[in-house]
Amino acid sequence: MFAATESAYGKAMISLMRELWPICRSITGAGVRESLSIIQRHLPTMNVKEIPTGTSCSDWRVPKEWVIRDAYIINPQGEKIVDFKMCNLHVVGYSIAVDKTMDLESLQAHLYSLPEQPSAIPYVTSYYKENWGFCLSHELRESLAPGCYQVKIDSELVDGSLSYGELVIPGFTDEEVLLSTYICHPSMANNELSGPCLAVALAAWLSTQQLRYTYRILFLPETIGAICYISKHLKVLKSKVQVGYVLTCVGDERAWSLLPSRKGNTLSDKIARHILGYLAPDYKEYSFLERGSDERQYCSPGVDLPIASVMRSKYATYPEYHTSLDNFDLVTESGMQSSFNVYQHILQAMEYHCFPKTRILCEPKMSDRGLRSPISQVGSAMNSRNMMNLIAYSDGVTSLLDIANIVGVPIWELFSAAQLLETQQILNLQFGTPKIFSIDG
Amino acid sequence: MFAATESAYGKAMISLMRELWPICRSITGAGVRESLSIIQRHLPTMNVKEIPTGTSCSDWRVPKEWVIRDAYIINPQGEKIVDFKMCNLHVVGYSIAVDKTMDLESLQAHLYSLPEQPSAIPYVTSYYKENWGFCLSHELRESLAPGCYQVKIDSELVDGSLSYGELVIPGFTDEEVLLSTYICHPSMANNELSGPCLAVALAAWLSTQQLRYTYRILFLPETIGAICYISKHLKVLKSKVQVGYVLTCVGDERAWSLLPSRKGNTLSDKIARHILGYLAPDYKEYSFLERGSDERQYCSPGVDLPIASVMRSKYATYPEYHTSLDNFDLVTESGMQSSFNVYQHILQAMEYHCFPKTRILCEPKMSDRGLRSPISQVGSAMNSRNMMNLIAYSDGVTSLLDIANIVGVPIWELFSAAQLLETQQILNLQFGTPKIFSIDG
Amino acid sequence: MFAATESAYGKAMISLMRELWPICRSITGAGVRESLSIIQRHLPTMNVKEIPTGTSCSDWRVPKEWVIRDAYIINPQGEKIVDFKMCNLHVVGYSIAVDKTMDLESLQAHLYSLPEQPSAIPYVTSYYKENWGFCLSHELRESLAPGCYQVKIDSELVDGSLSYGELVIPGFTDEEVLLSTYICHPSMANNELSGPCLAVALAAWLSTQQLRYTYRILFLPETIGAICYISKHLKVLKSKVQVGYVLTCVGDERAWSLLPSRKGNTLSDKIARHILGYLAPDYKEYSFLERGSDERQYCSPGVDLPIASVMRSKYATYPEYHTSLDNFDLVTESGMQSSFNVYQHILQAMEYHCFPKTRILCEPKMSDRGLRSPISQVGSAMNSRNMMNLIAYSDGVTSLLDIANIVGVPIWELFSAAQLLETQQILNLQFGTPKIFSIDG
Repeated sequence: MFAATESAYGKAMISLMRELWPICRSITGAGVRESLSIIQRHLPTMNVKEIPTGTSCSDWRVPKEWVIRDAYIINPQGEKIVDFKMCNLHVVGYSIAVDKTMDLESLQAHLYSLPEQPSAIPYVTSYYKENWGFCLSHELRESLAPGCYQVKIDSELVDGSLSYGELVIPGFTDEEVLLSTYICHPSMANNELSGPCLAVALAAWLSTQQLRYTYRILFLPETIGAICYISKHLKVLKSKVQVGYVLTCVGDERAWSLLPSRKGNTLSDKIARHILGYLAPDYKEYSFLERGSDERQYCSPGVDLPIASVMRSKYATYPEYHTSLDNFDLVTESGMQSSFNVYQHILQAMEYHCFPKTRILCEPKMSDRGLRSPISQVGSAMNSRNMMNLIAYSDGVTSLLDIANIVGVPIWELFSAAQLLETQQILNLQFGTPKIFSIDG
Repeated sequence: MFAATESAYGKAMISLMRELWPICRSITGAGVRESLSIIQRHLPTMNVKEIPTGTSCSDWRVPKEWVIRDAYIINPQGEKIVDFKMCNLHVVGYSIAVDKTMDLESLQAHLYSLPEQPSAIPYVTSYYKENWGFCLSHELRESLAPGCYQVKIDSELVDGSLSYGELVIPGFTDEEVLLSTYICHPSMANNELSGPCLAVALAAWLSTQQLRYTYRILFLPETIGAICYISKHLKVLKSKVQVGYVLTCVGDERAWSLLPSRKGNTLSDKIARHILGYLAPDYKEYSFLERGSDERQYCSPGVDLPIASVMRSKYATYPEYHTSLDNFDLVTESGMQSSFNVYQHILQAMEYHCFPKTRILCEPKMSDRGLRSPISQVGSAMNSRNMMNLIAYSDGVTSLLDIANIVGVPIWELFSAAQLLETQQILNLQFGTPKIFSIDG
Repeated sequence: MFAATESAYGKAMISLMRELWPICRSITGAGVRESLSIIQRHLPTMNVKEIPTGTSCSDWRVPKEWVIRDAYIINPQGEKIVDFKMCNLHVVGYSIAVDKTMDLESLQAHLYSLPEQPSAIPYVTSYYKENWGFCLSHELRESLAPGCYQVKIDSELVDGSLSYGELVIPGFTDEEVLLSTYICHPSMANNELSGPCLAVALAAWLSTQQLRYTYRILFLPETIGAICYISKHLKVLKSKVQVGYVLTCVGDERAWSLLPSRKGNTLSDKIARHILGYLAPDYKEYSFLERGSDERQYCSPGVDLPIASVMRSKYATYPEYHTSLDNFDLVTESGMQSSFNVYQHILQAMEYHCFPKTRILCEPKMSDRGLRSPISQVGSAMNSRNMMNLIAYSDGVTSLLDIANIVGVPIWELFSAAQLLETQQILNLQFGTPKIFSIDG
């Protein structure tokens, strides 16, 4: 079991995150495979897939695999001042091999630092153009004296493959909920170990539930992974996926954020707004123009999947983003646990998604069923008010979610009433998501 | 004649209300029949219909008839302290017979009072579960001393029928306007003698008019009556009714209220908003969630009639509601007269409902028809401005009501212009209400 | 050439306006013909058309031609106090001949002045009812002493024709942009020499461009001219015109105004709002109820063309309107030049109108095309942000204009990006305006 109780998921996620932390991940390579194999320990039915170097995926091509063994800079005094083994952010991702001595001026062209965050090591990559470089704190860079520096990157670009994880948890129907997260970032916590660790926790929890929908959970390298996956599974995704979310930046405690889908009013967006409205009412809704993760691919024209993203502090909005400061000072057990809780409510809301239709012309006789006091006096109707409102809007084409929004109650409360009324043969709940509602809102 | 002039309808309604006041009405029984027969004196073409006890109507069944002859409580000192003959609210509606002596403690379980309105006698019923009880002021209840009380209710539940009145006033077309009111409340004024008395006045006035639409006016017991009527006339109602209103709580002078239909933008709603906007611009529009009368049935899924309700103080919002304080201190001649006036404008607006279509390409030559000054100078076009605006929007699919809202003038003013332009062969008015406009707004 | 450079159009328009100023125009007659022949010097391919007196046009009939040679009033002292030759506003348009001596009282019935603007000579016409009159300043009128006045109007109403100019500038498609202006006003500057002079400038500029759309530019007498033209060309106008504007009141510097089309959200309206939003963001949008020029005809039911009007100070809103004060104190070179600039942007926006559609599933690989830095670090995506947003919305049914509004950039900026992406084979631009978008918005 991933965790003993639902309230222990936060602790379990942090523990997994600390295990994954030291591994040097990139969009391909041994680090990704090692990370996937740790995840597989918790999700034994997850498949790891490989797409060979050179495979065409839409406008892209799977790159060579990056092998990184070591990287360092030795200063004129012979001290190893930058060392990949101390922090894997120090080497620019996909750096090619280098082994030479050079003066400081020549070296500067290969150094990356952040003058405005002098203590932070930035995260830099050069996936698709051969290059090499080191990332270091601006403080350290400023202290470098002229002289001869020895630079060494022990790396290779080799024919290999792109690795990803795919887990399908079957439900009663083959209509699907898509959860997508990415496993290509080296040692950073919020962006991005929080996403895959939440995905593991949600998958573990879903595996214990009786599910109406089928859940497709993807652990991909960002961008190239999503593009490869979409281009190879477009038809099945378009025909099955009803709602979905990109899981990223879900570990801090500062803010709640919604990045809506391109169309802006899909079922995914509506569920997210409904749940955040109750559990985190001061959340910030961003524009799709501020997107930045794999919804860029899932929502692109012709793909048109209803994918949104519920986050804590959104990528590119918090100062630690894409630096060595994005660590366990920022991401906490409590932050992870509350993200788990919100996504649990979101997925549950999807499981509740139905189009209730009354079986009775006019109002049913509630008192005969014990659902209303037989004595009618001022205020006596209040107790059954939610139920009567639910029935009044149960026309078979208004979803339970929409009714919950009209009536102004959480969907989980209304669903309890709906189940009781179904038992009483007053409502047919009509589960399922006609495409017209799920995709075009 | 119901009243000599339109301005005398208020007085005539109050007079009728006082005549109906003492009768003990319930959802069935002699009180309903006596009330209907008094109404019939003013509306001789109204039919009184009976539906036998036990008849199934959708989820409901017509109950036994309630016969109530007497009811009282005698205190230990032998004084008749609660007496149905003094106020028919004293007995819980549909109380079964009882004749016994009991101590105060046992009696308390059968007493109803309002601690927060200590001088008011509440209105309580128990139609569908055999029970008995007395309603009394909380002041009186508090004064009761321990001892032996004699309680007597001389009543019966017998096989009989449910009575209602139905009046159809034919117009030029068989498209219909539905007015529905209820006749099941004992001695209370605003909720509810104001509704049926206004219905009588409107019916009397309509009978003197040349009508385009047919008017169906129903005097029903609330809930069970509407459900019976709908379940037996569903097809005709759905095919004919274009607009309609529940008449209730129309007698006080405190407020104006609109309870819109479920769909919220039917022709009924739009007409009500237009008229109230001119005649009572500070009216309050409630949500359909705050419904409480027979629109609950008319607007239910599968029935889907466009029924709204224009009220003065809405039921359940004023302190006298469902108590003995809902009397002629609250309901006034002036209150009734102004409700008559508003509904008269509403029905007139319906009679004006048309889809004007210009017969002339481009603007007509108004000056040739004497509709505009032949001298053109600054400001000379202002007099014909409403007419020109009416023509500019007369595309055959925008209703006169919608044009009136666009142009910002009352429909009655625009209708005069429309008639003149029809005479001048500039417009075809195109009366009639395509379903697409009347029901789905 | 009309002007040497685009920045010289203002000066050229003012020069043309001063040449046209002294001519006494009306809805027919020599003044119109002379004005059209001057315009023709700048637009040699413009055709001048004549519609004979008596021709039926929808509800109207082409009137007789008005010949005006002289008009004056001589006071009892023998002084010519009102003289058509000094100002052609002095005679009421279409005045019939008169030659008599009369006392002041009798004369007053034929005098027009503005008590609230005592120094202004008003503009008055009586096209369709035989009449005569003089317009004069209220100051002068107040100074008239009793006595015998000699009044003379040397005019005739003769069978002739209504004259108008029509210029078609062909583009790549026969879908059309309509520009309509009027040439029936005597010596006034903003309303109306500014419209025809701007139309000449725009036509001159368009003639130097390679055009996607065909431009139909009309110089008509107001109302009767537009009605005649529409009634004779309805089918072609309805099948070809995609957007259009009435050019009027475009010469002052006080305000910017939009008079939208009747439907209010046509492509014409949307382009105007977009351009004004960038170039004149404090513009005032009027309601179609405040219309007053030939959009009254173009937007009438059954004609239904998408015609709006972008103005400086709207007719009937500025004090000099329809008086002798509407002169070159009000209309300036700078006012005319900025109107030219705004309309140039509007027409250019129409030339940019397309429905971009991505040719690539998911995001394209921008760095391979040199459109994005191959090094990925914080902020590195910002430079390509507009391009990526454009691609993200290029679904083939959202217009470039709508995308520009979503992304929040001017269409001319986005069009540059779109052209680059077309060159890169990333987008198909899909020019053309499906009726569903252009007319019904």
